[in-house]
Amino acid sequence: MSQALHPLDRATALQWRDGFCEGHTDEAYWNFVGPFGGYTAATVLRAVLEHPQRQGDPVSFTVNFALPLSEGAFTIRPRPVQTGRSTQHWNIELEQDPARGTAINAIALLAARRPTWEATEAVMPTVPAAESLERFDVSGLTRWPLSYDMRFVRGAVRLRDVANGEPAPASDDSLTQVWMRDEPGRPLDYVSLTALCDAFFPRLFLRRPRWVPLGTVSMNIYFHATTEELAEVGDRHILCVAQAARFHAAFSDQLSSVWSPSGRLLATTQQLVWYKE
Amino acid sequence: MSQALHPLDRATALQWRDGFCEGHTDEAYWNFVGPFGGYTAATVLRAVLEHPQRQGDPVSFTVNFALPLSEGAFTIRPRPVQTGRSTQHWNIELEQDPARGTAINAIALLAARRPTWEATEAVMPTVPAAESLERFDVSGLTRWPLSYDMRFVRGAVRLRDVANGEPAPASDDSLTQVWMRDEPGRPLDYVSLTALCDAFFPRLFLRRPRWVPLGTVSMNIYFHATTEELAEVGDRHILCVAQAARFHAAFSDQLSSVWSPSGRLLATTQQLVWYKE
Repeated sequence: MSQALHPLDRATALQWRDGFCEGHTDEAYWNFVGPFGGYTAATVLRAVLEHPQRQGDPVSFTVNFALPLSEGAFTIRPRPVQTGRSTQHWNIELEQDPARGTAINAIALLAARRPTWEATEAVMPTVPAAESLERFDVSGLTRWPLSYDMRFVRGAVRLRDVANGEPAPASDDSLTQVWMRDEPGRPLDYVSLTALCDAFFPRLFLRRPRWVPLGTVSMNIYFHATTEELAEVGDRHILCVAQAARFHAAFSDQLSSVWSPSGRLLATTQQLVWYKE
Repeated sequence: MSQALHPLDRATALQWRDGFCEGHTDEAYWNFVGPFGGYTAATVLRAVLEHPQRQGDPVSFTVNFALPLSEGAFTIRPRPVQTGRSTQHWNIELEQDPARGTAINAIALLAARRPTWEATEAVMPTVPAAESLERFDVSGLTRWPLSYDMRFVRGAVRLRDVANGEPAPASDDSLTQVWMRDEPGRPLDYVSLTALCDAFFPRLFLRRPRWVPLGTVSMNIYFHATTEELAEVGDRHILCVAQAARFHAAFSDQLSSVWSPSGRLLATTQQLVWYKE
């Protein structure tokens, strides 16, 4: 009996042509007016990982969002621009409408990892275990949060209230600590970790819980986790921590760290968010 | 009488051809075996800023270092991949030897900034003023640090001792706080700020003060500063704060923030560093 594909694997599936590939947006990762950016980033990374010339595992990945995507098919062109003994550099552009040009502009660095001296200076927050917390009610929101199991320790964005214009209290800071995993469960890999790195609700809505147009314009991920460390997580929750440093002149950042249940720093990730007012 | 060009302006000067430009490494920004990476990144950004199609100011800039550069000329090809009403996305590749291909793989996002709601959550450390501190003695090091005036509050890397194999104490953490400016002084702009974002000595040498091969492979900058805020700094020192989150399996990160003397967060910047053992 064949096992059904996980929704994330179905949504990020690619049809390979000669040197490029085609994907298709998926209802399970739909946001208000286009696909969830984490889904798009994950699909772009998958195009590199599946490329026949791929060497090594991702260590640095930067995705700039240039145009909104619509429902439907898109084309990804991953291009290896430099391959060394232990590193490989990629340039990736995603296009949906040839008349409008590049919608996603991304670069990636893959590398062969080897054991070296190691140390972790960042400190994992002391938080209750995921199993002891309630799953966040994401009903009545947009579609993609239903594809995640989120258990907030602090800093839950009341996205439904914000979207519906209901009064919601403003927080003093934008710090969020949340356990997240794919729903249904799925063993963690670089593709799902990429999407999870963008699965935070906007920091601005914690500080100013009212609806304004906004969107992630740039996301960068440093993957600290080796494949062995990802395998060790399996389908358990990972602890995702995010906070903005500055909101200013139409852009704010978001600095995040992502931890395994056993305390390994899997990734540090940052993004820049445009907001209207 | 014509005023002499500042060394940084001389070093990053570009000769424009048809859609691309040529630069040349400069002794004032030389590192041990190639140009200082901050110089290279600054030159790549300058190629975007000087491009006739440029619109807006830089807000996100990511530079991946694919090949080491040698002394001599190089070619930069900035390509605007998407221009909207208020944002512009760029792809930039630098090549020195056509037989070896892309040496720098970079993307940038420029934008028109406008006044919006604002807040700063990051907290500037309370530190002594630059004027009250001694300039760090950078003699006997490699060349580029002489192009900066560095005044360490804490976390000075004893780079000369490390490079010479002299015993140096290991620090418990990799946190550095240092006031820096160009030497000689130069009004701060996006080009010089880019170079300053890479002017930290390697975090690894604080934790393990012995010489091992290492190098920055990826650097990302979020520019929070508007041109007005840069102008307000002028040629004064800016406070640069950096710390690693994790050293692991041949790569470590460095998470940094850069502050104006009056307490504005000018940039958040992060980089990934390869190290050999």
